[in-house]
Amino acid sequence: MAEFIKDGSIRLTNGVSAYSYAAAVGKMEGEGPLGDCFDYVASGAEIGEDTWEKSESKFQQYALEMALNKSGLQKSDLSIIFAGDLLNQCTGSAYGLRDSGVPFIGLYGACSTMAESLMLASLFADMRLGERFAAITSSHFCSAERQFRFPINYGGVRPPTSQWTATAAGCCITAAAEKPPYIKAVTVGKITDMGIKDANNMGAAMAGAAYDSLSRHFENTCSSPDDYDGIFTGDLGQVGTDILCELFDKRGVDISRVHNDCGLMLYDREKQDVHAGGSGCGCSASVLCAHILPSIAGGKLHRVLFAATGALMSTTMSQQGESIPGISHVVEIADTL
Amino acid sequence: MAEFIKDGSIRLTNGVSAYSYAAAVGKMEGEGPLGDCFDYVASGAEIGEDTWEKSESKFQQYALEMALNKSGLQKSDLSIIFAGDLLNQCTGSAYGLRDSGVPFIGLYGACSTMAESLMLASLFADMRLGERFAAITSSHFCSAERQFRFPINYGGVRPPTSQWTATAAGCCITAAAEKPPYIKAVTVGKITDMGIKDANNMGAAMAGAAYDSLSRHFENTCSSPDDYDGIFTGDLGQVGTDILCELFDKRGVDISRVHNDCGLMLYDREKQDVHAGGSGCGCSASVLCAHILPSIAGGKLHRVLFAATGALMSTTMSQQGESIPGISHVVEIADTL
Repeated sequence: MAEFIKDGSIRLTNGVSAYSYAAAVGKMEGEGPLGDCFDYVASGAEIGEDTWEKSESKFQQYALEMALNKSGLQKSDLSIIFAGDLLNQCTGSAYGLRDSGVPFIGLYGACSTMAESLMLASLFADMRLGERFAAITSSHFCSAERQFRFPINYGGVRPPTSQWTATAAGCCITAAAEKPPYIKAVTVGKITDMGIKDANNMGAAMAGAAYDSLSRHFENTCSSPDDYDGIFTGDLGQVGTDILCELFDKRGVDISRVHNDCGLMLYDREKQDVHAGGSGCGCSASVLCAHILPSIAGGKLHRVLFAATGALMSTTMSQQGESIPGISHVVEIADTL
Repeated sequence: MAEFIKDGSIRLTNGVSAYSYAAAVGKMEGEGPLGDCFDYVASGAEIGEDTWEKSESKFQQYALEMALNKSGLQKSDLSIIFAGDLLNQCTGSAYGLRDSGVPFIGLYGACSTMAESLMLASLFADMRLGERFAAITSSHFCSAERQFRFPINYGGVRPPTSQWTATAAGCCITAAAEKPPYIKAVTVGKITDMGIKDANNMGAAMAGAAYDSLSRHFENTCSSPDDYDGIFTGDLGQVGTDILCELFDKRGVDISRVHNDCGLMLYDREKQDVHAGGSGCGCSASVLCAHILPSIAGGKLHRVLFAATGALMSTTMSQQGESIPGISHVVEIADTL
């Protein structure tokens, strides 16, 4: 039975596998460095739907269906789906999974949603509160831009600190331990506010949350960066990554040797004009499901931390002069039980 | 250890108390039939803040602080907070709980959030994944109207099927069993779409979800309406209540003897102009925390179902011609272990 350590950290003790996983992405993400890893790459951003929001829902459906298919599962094999996304009222999930017929727990963690959903799906699997659980999330560049900033047709100039919301969805199905990757421990994030008010500088807004959650995970599980061969934040981009490394440096801890950020992995910033990097729930979700988990299953990585980061940003609150709170949940994944 | 039954239903077996609970409401809710039950009634809708959104956050803070104070607890006694609300990006919760320093799991279940958060807080308590867990949610008439319908200054005419979003917040803290009320079982909701496209007829949009979840709870726990002395949905209002009873009638099941709806309990519809009843996350949350749980603790109720209902409504998706999906989670609460 999972064991509460302290201050948000919980160790899984019954054994839980990331049993099946898949990612569906848009054309631009398919042209990036991880292009060959994805289960589905769309020819554009619409995939047969007449709106961006409906397209985002369809990316979620594709990710779920492919994760199921890869393991010969049906939707009816799932006990609970944990899902959320960036759209107001999390409609990417609600409409994408509306017809699934599976018990549904809706989440809001902004771009931290892949870690939040995987954390819950893993704890429920560890507790055997069902047989299989799906963690799903998505984002879409066009639906996010018009909701959070400007309609893309407006052609607003994006500042250098801005990040590119990924058009992507990821799904990871958890179950009682059967094969690696195994979920080993989690640390629940705390809302952390760095005082950043610029909606085009989310990396800075989230760096403090990643620092807090990773620090607590190290301390509570008696581990250090040297115990991992990969610490993946997402999506801090370049600005947030620099701040995170600086925060650890100040404490005399060097994470740079094993750290990478999903927002820096999804795109080729030399060739693709994404400024400070990728972002959006789908960014860390697709990097997790198409690169990190397969690398662990394939023996290339052995023990990693996945720390998706979310900016709990709202246009309404920004207009009222408020800063942007961040949150980051940590999931520890390894190739041995 | 909690036992998975089937199809979304889970029985708690280690013993969990609704340990402390409180509700903070606005002036109008304080003038309703439950006015004397609330822990805090504001003199207006703003409570010292200059925007409705910030006021909503403050109602959440008040509900949390009063639930803590009533049991002599500090924020640092909480292991995890589960919270969400109706505002885009769930800012009622994010900003209301930003300074709590407590590990935070953000939820989106629209007006079902009190049941969703209580369900998770109860399962985590049953699993002993910490010591105490808070389930919190809120809504605010003015912030919801301008987000989902019209700015209130516009003075739009509200149709008879419309419901009045409660200005209210509720908080329930769960812990290992110590005293009644006890949380006994839960049923996770499924997204259910009745094809309703009218954002002023949410009761109809949610009735099918309540019917589905309650039906599964009865079947999976081998119980019937006669086994309960209270089945509280929320917030179906009059229109949704009539549909729910009709759906059960068609199957030869009479729930009307023990059924009540939080949306019909919060206001005096003869004297208060709320049309089809109350709604909003805060409606069922405040009725639960100020009336239902105290009634169980006081021996007036013995075994109840709390089935908060949410309309996963989005102005964007309504504008794209989509219908409104609903969801309802069920929490069974009793005065004996």
